[in-house]
Amino acid sequence: MLGRMQDWDMVMSRVIDHAAREHADREIVTRWADGRTTRTNYAAIRHDAKRLSQALRALGVNKGDRVGTLAMNHANHLVAWYGVVGAGAVAHTINPRLFDDQLIFIANHAEDRILFYDAAFAPLVERLKPHWHGIEHYICFDDGAFETLLAGHDGDCDWTPVDERDPCMLCYTSGTTGDPKGVLYEHRSNMLHSMAGLQSSIFGFEARSVVLPVVPLFHANAWGLPWAAPMTGTKLVFSAVNEAAVLLDLMEQEGVDMTAGVPTVWMAIFAYLDETGRSLPERLARVIIGGAAPPSAMIRRLIDAGIEPAHAWGMTETSPVGTVTMLPVDWEKLDVGQQVVYKSRQGKAPFGVEIRCVDLDDPSLELPRDGKTSGALQVRGPWVVRRYFKAEEDCTGPDQWFETGDVAVIHPDGSLQLTDRTKDLIKSGGEWISSVELENAAAGHPGVAEAAAFGVPDAKWTERPVLAVVRKSGQSPTAEDILRFLSDKVAKWWLPDAVHFLDELPHTATGKVSKKTLREQFAGG
Amino acid sequence: MLGRMQDWDMVMSRVIDHAAREHADREIVTRWADGRTTRTNYAAIRHDAKRLSQALRALGVNKGDRVGTLAMNHANHLVAWYGVVGAGAVAHTINPRLFDDQLIFIANHAEDRILFYDAAFAPLVERLKPHWHGIEHYICFDDGAFETLLAGHDGDCDWTPVDERDPCMLCYTSGTTGDPKGVLYEHRSNMLHSMAGLQSSIFGFEARSVVLPVVPLFHANAWGLPWAAPMTGTKLVFSAVNEAAVLLDLMEQEGVDMTAGVPTVWMAIFAYLDETGRSLPERLARVIIGGAAPPSAMIRRLIDAGIEPAHAWGMTETSPVGTVTMLPVDWEKLDVGQQVVYKSRQGKAPFGVEIRCVDLDDPSLELPRDGKTSGALQVRGPWVVRRYFKAEEDCTGPDQWFETGDVAVIHPDGSLQLTDRTKDLIKSGGEWISSVELENAAAGHPGVAEAAAFGVPDAKWTERPVLAVVRKSGQSPTAEDILRFLSDKVAKWWLPDAVHFLDELPHTATGKVSKKTLREQFAGG
Repeated sequence: MLGRMQDWDMVMSRVIDHAAREHADREIVTRWADGRTTRTNYAAIRHDAKRLSQALRALGVNKGDRVGTLAMNHANHLVAWYGVVGAGAVAHTINPRLFDDQLIFIANHAEDRILFYDAAFAPLVERLKPHWHGIEHYICFDDGAFETLLAGHDGDCDWTPVDERDPCMLCYTSGTTGDPKGVLYEHRSNMLHSMAGLQSSIFGFEARSVVLPVVPLFHANAWGLPWAAPMTGTKLVFSAVNEAAVLLDLMEQEGVDMTAGVPTVWMAIFAYLDETGRSLPERLARVIIGGAAPPSAMIRRLIDAGIEPAHAWGMTETSPVGTVTMLPVDWEKLDVGQQVVYKSRQGKAPFGVEIRCVDLDDPSLELPRDGKTSGALQVRGPWVVRRYFKAEEDCTGPDQWFETGDVAVIHPDGSLQLTDRTKDLIKSGGEWISSVELENAAAGHPGVAEAAAFGVPDAKWTERPVLAVVRKSGQSPTAEDILRFLSDKVAKWWLPDAVHFLDELPHTATGKVSKKTLREQFAGG
Repeated sequence: MLGRMQDWDMVMSRVIDHAAREHADREIVTRWADGRTTRTNYAAIRHDAKRLSQALRALGVNKGDRVGTLAMNHANHLVAWYGVVGAGAVAHTINPRLFDDQLIFIANHAEDRILFYDAAFAPLVERLKPHWHGIEHYICFDDGAFETLLAGHDGDCDWTPVDERDPCMLCYTSGTTGDPKGVLYEHRSNMLHSMAGLQSSIFGFEARSVVLPVVPLFHANAWGLPWAAPMTGTKLVFSAVNEAAVLLDLMEQEGVDMTAGVPTVWMAIFAYLDETGRSLPERLARVIIGGAAPPSAMIRRLIDAGIEPAHAWGMTETSPVGTVTMLPVDWEKLDVGQQVVYKSRQGKAPFGVEIRCVDLDDPSLELPRDGKTSGALQVRGPWVVRRYFKAEEDCTGPDQWFETGDVAVIHPDGSLQLTDRTKDLIKSGGEWISSVELENAAAGHPGVAEAAAFGVPDAKWTERPVLAVVRKSGQSPTAEDILRFLSDKVAKWWLPDAVHFLDELPHTATGKVSKKTLREQFAGG
């Protein structure tokens, strides 16, 4: 048919081009690990990214090659994102908090050819260098080496032409089982993800917005913030350290109105406020919390402080925005308690994302959205993974549905509520026991500081639940005390076969309770 | 390279699918021409659109065929959009306000096979039927025929598979010269346009938003509102008539918080408020004004009423969102006068759109963004036209830049300010005279109600300016009076060679002053 609209490929270099053209002077502020604060802007960041793309080509980096970063949040890390992607290569952000064997596996599996790293991680880099086989150049971000690398280049070059389905970034999941798996983001997937993130219910950026992403640049596209911000001219404020006092100072000094991070950030900030009597920054208006479910008290405290908390769910495999709080039509009629309950849910799917729950035993059976029937959460959409990096087959089921590993209910209004992880469910006598409900019930005992429920193999019942408990200091409940406490709170067949007392629960590299370790430790019964 | 994200084609049926799945109960309210009000919702709209797609197939409509609509805003018109597009056909919205010869040309040129129309336009349809050669079926939206058409179908069907670069809608420009030209929107261009529209500075919709699009569904995608609303679950309120009292009643009854329309809508509403002493609806928070520049007093009155006006520029050829007001960083420090001046500009380009001004005589010369140097405005991006429907060549220049026909300056912050239309500029002695500046100066004379400046051919100077004036009633300024008044307001060589007095200025079908008619009338000097 004759007649058409313009050709326009969805390549991510367009984002920094736009910011440099339309929001040239908007600042990117960095508070570095050594306490310095520096300022640059989108025009200068783009110029540096162009110079970096020249430097990478000079080092022999080709289209599709992986370039690793092992770094906290700062302007040079951002330059590396845009410069690597603009050079047609793949920006591979590595989580420095992983265990050594994971770090070794990841950089080798990715075949990283260059590694940019923070001086703070120099000891780690020195320790692992002998194990990393493909890295040809190590360049420190904050000891002058990065500036030296750029110094020989003038930035007068084109971005490397790429196809919109070419990869631009790589991020490994830190799963609790097996080797980490790489999710290879594409230009097109990242662009749709970032454009979706601009809507009011997600980031809601305007040109005059100021965001401090506490979420690290190595954490799944940093939730898309470093792409959504330049799309709108939003000022970016980075901190290479995440101490509460530093973050609050920065927010006040730079007029931050939005921030995004995991719940532990807010635990630390609240503790600091309580200690010091400081208040939350005046201009802070909106907070996005994801990565784990925020406790109700956290949501309530933010609401009471006049800050709008939004709760988001996602994963590395979903770029990561999966669902986000969308205020219901009757929001203003809800009392604050009801508002907290609503915000405790994981939110609704924005346009682009589809979610559904299927039966745990029969995944072909889609479950009703009744707010009661829990099942395995599946997701699909343009920014959801189809095949892990270097995998030989797709990780999706029929019709591209991706199994999230979460157990959830979906309410009639479409809002999602996670109830457990699939692998943490305990299957006893053909029925499912929720580990989360069981440990939440146990945590209600006045002598219990922390509890973890997990399944151990059982000849008769397939699995039986077992509880690991950390006692509150000065308290000494017995197993019998705890079982008696639970007896009127959960079904009889849910009662744990054993209660083990530990000094502390084992954790994964990303800070989650490692039920895998517990299962291994207590499998013998 | 191994590893990838999911395949997901950008086809517009996904939008109504999403709305029906995640925002099923959200209402679409219609106030019909006969005074009735009806309510439906996204789930029902989708069901009806599916039934319509079945009916269209039964009538022999094939992929790519054009289906015309000649109608005001109501739920059935919306069903026609989604149903036609979902059937893989092209929804061709026709502006019923055009002249007969334009309407005849448009439907014949588009080769419309079916025409849906409002009962209010039945006389027009009867009059033009003999001239429309390709229309096989005429179906009235609001006399029961539309419901009868759907009645035989159950909605149990798939949407017709299409490619994302396939066309989905068609809209003709009502240019003042030559035949109307068709812009053929594609699924992909419409989807990127709609997603961009969700950002805070444009529509800023949330799931609980309520929008009343005064902009007609036949006006360039209705600015994208009928696509952006279902993407977010925004409630749509339609009125088939645009009387101020009806619009205000609807806004109040339905809790409308956002509306969008041309400045004349607000002229009428303000006049009605002044007559009746009514106030603006309490929940109305944001107003998007486009299609023509709103007068400063209009912007000021909305700000004073606590409503946020945004000024948008675009054209049929740009889907239509081109630029939109983005509040600058120092917004809160501006006094209201400065805010009005800023909002009088046409705004900034959102991500996706590129704008530039080039020299009027040498289009290869890009002009500085200094807020002073005016030139020909060019635009490009994924939702900008490349080739008109059935044209034999592209309508863009090198690198896809599209000539808008506007004369503008771009300010250092990237905000656009239109100053004239290219074709209305007067070239005298090798220099350009702005018709708009000249007529604005003349309009300052106390005896002048309205003035239009235009160029007439001149042997020596190429063109010379001439002024057409409508006197205020009871006033009788002479040509000499007006020239004397202008003499200290414009350069001497700008002074018109003649001043003609008319009872009224000639207008085009869309209500703009027809300078073409004036030039023809007064070319003889």
